[in-house]
Amino acid sequence: MSPPQQHYDKDSETCRLAIEFTTENRHQLPAIINDLVASSRDRQLFAHIDAELIPSEEKVVEIIQRTRRLLFPGYFNRQPLDDSHLEYAVGMEMTRLFEILSGEIALSIRHDCQRYDLVCTHCQERGQQEAIHFLKQLAEIRKVLTTDVQAAYDGDPAAKNIDEVIISYPGVLAITTHRIAHQLWRQEIPLLPRMMSEYAHSITGIDIHPGATIGKSFFLDHGTGVVIGETSKIGERVRVYQGVTLGALSLPKEEVEQLRHEKRHPTIEDDVTIYAGATILGGETIIGAGSVIGGSVWITASVPSGTKVFLAPPKLVYRNANSAAKKR
Amino acid sequence: MSPPQQHYDKDSETCRLAIEFTTENRHQLPAIINDLVASSRDRQLFAHIDAELIPSEEKVVEIIQRTRRLLFPGYFNRQPLDDSHLEYAVGMEMTRLFEILSGEIALSIRHDCQRYDLVCTHCQERGQQEAIHFLKQLAEIRKVLTTDVQAAYDGDPAAKNIDEVIISYPGVLAITTHRIAHQLWRQEIPLLPRMMSEYAHSITGIDIHPGATIGKSFFLDHGTGVVIGETSKIGERVRVYQGVTLGALSLPKEEVEQLRHEKRHPTIEDDVTIYAGATILGGETIIGAGSVIGGSVWITASVPSGTKVFLAPPKLVYRNANSAAKKR
Amino acid sequence: MSPPQQHYDKDSETCRLAIEFTTENRHQLPAIINDLVASSRDRQLFAHIDAELIPSEEKVVEIIQRTRRLLFPGYFNRQPLDDSHLEYAVGMEMTRLFEILSGEIALSIRHDCQRYDLVCTHCQERGQQEAIHFLKQLAEIRKVLTTDVQAAYDGDPAAKNIDEVIISYPGVLAITTHRIAHQLWRQEIPLLPRMMSEYAHSITGIDIHPGATIGKSFFLDHGTGVVIGETSKIGERVRVYQGVTLGALSLPKEEVEQLRHEKRHPTIEDDVTIYAGATILGGETIIGAGSVIGGSVWITASVPSGTKVFLAPPKLVYRNANSAAKKR
Repeated sequence: MSPPQQHYDKDSETCRLAIEFTTENRHQLPAIINDLVASSRDRQLFAHIDAELIPSEEKVVEIIQRTRRLLFPGYFNRQPLDDSHLEYAVGMEMTRLFEILSGEIALSIRHDCQRYDLVCTHCQERGQQEAIHFLKQLAEIRKVLTTDVQAAYDGDPAAKNIDEVIISYPGVLAITTHRIAHQLWRQEIPLLPRMMSEYAHSITGIDIHPGATIGKSFFLDHGTGVVIGETSKIGERVRVYQGVTLGALSLPKEEVEQLRHEKRHPTIEDDVTIYAGATILGGETIIGAGSVIGGSVWITASVPSGTKVFLAPPKLVYRNANSAAKKR
Repeated sequence: MSPPQQHYDKDSETCRLAIEFTTENRHQLPAIINDLVASSRDRQLFAHIDAELIPSEEKVVEIIQRTRRLLFPGYFNRQPLDDSHLEYAVGMEMTRLFEILSGEIALSIRHDCQRYDLVCTHCQERGQQEAIHFLKQLAEIRKVLTTDVQAAYDGDPAAKNIDEVIISYPGVLAITTHRIAHQLWRQEIPLLPRMMSEYAHSITGIDIHPGATIGKSFFLDHGTGVVIGETSKIGERVRVYQGVTLGALSLPKEEVEQLRHEKRHPTIEDDVTIYAGATILGGETIIGAGSVIGGSVWITASVPSGTKVFLAPPKLVYRNANSAAKKR
Repeated sequence: MSPPQQHYDKDSETCRLAIEFTTENRHQLPAIINDLVASSRDRQLFAHIDAELIPSEEKVVEIIQRTRRLLFPGYFNRQPLDDSHLEYAVGMEMTRLFEILSGEIALSIRHDCQRYDLVCTHCQERGQQEAIHFLKQLAEIRKVLTTDVQAAYDGDPAAKNIDEVIISYPGVLAITTHRIAHQLWRQEIPLLPRMMSEYAHSITGIDIHPGATIGKSFFLDHGTGVVIGETSKIGERVRVYQGVTLGALSLPKEEVEQLRHEKRHPTIEDDVTIYAGATILGGETIIGAGSVIGGSVWITASVPSGTKVFLAPPKLVYRNANSAAKKR
């Protein structure tokens, strides 16, 4: 066989090897395909065949981006937004969002109906109704997001101006996506909210479950590694730094099923600051208003309002490089 | 010079400034280009000129996505998957995957041949053989992934149903990609497996080296910040939370070269749970079966089966906000 | 209403439900649109109407990718790079980069002018001058990046060869983006550098503020969760592992404004290694040359050269699973 030539793959606009496929290899494919078809039909293994479509990741991202353009007018548009064509721009964006959102909500509902063997007779209608209800909340969500952006600017000395915060802060993308997903969660739409939160998680490293309740003026700095669980309740003017977990206490396997509908994550009252890497666990844990939780603190019990909790300075061992120090 | 007008850039469908480029600035370009060409030819600096193509990131992502559609039939297809056309859908997907994978494997091998000054005579043939061998494993990998998905559902009270776990859990994307990459790693394909694991890392924040050996029913919750090193060995039914490191002990620069082929990362036996932020280091460290490693625990020595290790509750300092508390 | 049919959405090449939109729902849209238009005009809420375009995320990503192709010739090109057409390839890439960069710099400057109510008369000219100045630095940045790549290879026993490090290591993408963004930061370009660092953060989980000063041979391993603040100063041959924070001391809200122009983040001298999860805080904190900071160490004061600091082994509690151990 001669050395392979390169060819230009027009799908990916990339040069690749022009492989000469040998029949010996090719002829093995049908048997492998048959095996995988059999595997796909194996009821013990997960497959999604003859089933309703599920919301697609592309559509989920499109819904978030269109909603974000409506929530922060002019910031994420590809063309400048003039006051003279504002009605037109908002109207076009919202009409298209309504159409896509109606469809994906309907798919999410149908998926659930099929799962519970319900006959789905009005998913189209409900998709539209829920989309309309969602769109009605946008003006209110805009007000809350304005407080979040202001809190980020006020809380970060590195912020140069409000616009920089809106267009580049991952915490703002995370809380924007959360406020969208949480609204759909409150409307009891299945699947879609969780797919939205996972999109934000993939971009920002911030994992906020759509079920979490979060008050206004919420500031997430840096954010990578933050985990906020499903039944968390967070008050107003709360500040959370990177690597903070609001989680559940350890979950013995046998209790998972009964825990699905209980409050498992903490309550954070107003004006609390939680520094990097702190972990707060448990559904009955309440961090009282105005408290400050120091970096890397681990808390599983409530603290009263106005408490500052920090690690007693851990004993550090200092060694000079020239001594016989054993490296960790 | 008049104020710039906007123009519509059709490549990106975006309005941009229509800059009037001045000759004064333009005329500086040739000298800068010459400098950078000279720099590109400087043998002391890294460049990849007159060299074999390397696998492209786009192709790596395409291979993962096509393989994922075969491993979870119907979940990530853009069109509904009916039983009546299952053979056709699987056949088309697998044939295309075979072609692309053969090519990228061949490129990976050729790249290594060139690096070691070997004459590469059968890279095309080996690309196809290795691709065939890989595809034969998919039915088996499907079985293992089913146990991983079930473990995620069983381990997370926030999971609503299996479909949600498959389409939205980052831990499932990470372990799916790992099982793909690890199979290629076992076939000793260079470059490609590491590029795959880095793709999953960029999406999920979960960094699993393709060399790591991981048993079935593996559950990664949240996952951001998890690092699992190349020579880690993980048993069955292991649960790992966000921010966990399975790493190497500190690496004095002079010993790095000799460590390249040694076991440097820990062994985790069956049924172990490792909570958030725990760090387990060292190639001789074995966490015995059924053990529970608490959050933020730091371990560099083995523990016997059935051990629970947790931090002695660190001394926390509580201060009332009105006292003269010194802030951390 | 009949059950919905599927249709093929050609924009996304996806099958979706073909919803029959009811007039009842559609007729609610105009009122919702009017509300959101009013909200968009509410001066108390953030909007960007009748304002200058801001740099677009797509263009920022394109600038980084084109610059990276110039900095690592041949590694990220879609077609093989031969010495015979090197001038042509570099010339084309740099000319196009010059054009795009000039435009986005001009937009960034105009945005700032508008914010401070300045009349912007020479933003086009300055955009080109700054772009030229930036391009002149690329040959020098190439030299520094070569030391960074070498440091990654030397520091990681899992690295198979230099090419793998360049094409797949997130730390290399992060430091490459940082060296690009930092150059623009030094030229006092607003907005653009911060958008670049946030792009790298979203891909790698590594958050380096473009203002940070970082010496050559910088090695970031794994990287997820790393935060390096705006006024950090880092020497040469420094190694930083995942989850490390170089941050500011706690920021009482009332002091944020005055802190915006102060050094708030630490200084790390040459040859320092900082292991995973360590936190170093404060603008006056200096880590002396050759020091080693152990994993999870928390430091808010300077340490002299050659110091090794590690946590006194924390008291771990070990319990056998069969005893009456209370789980954490």
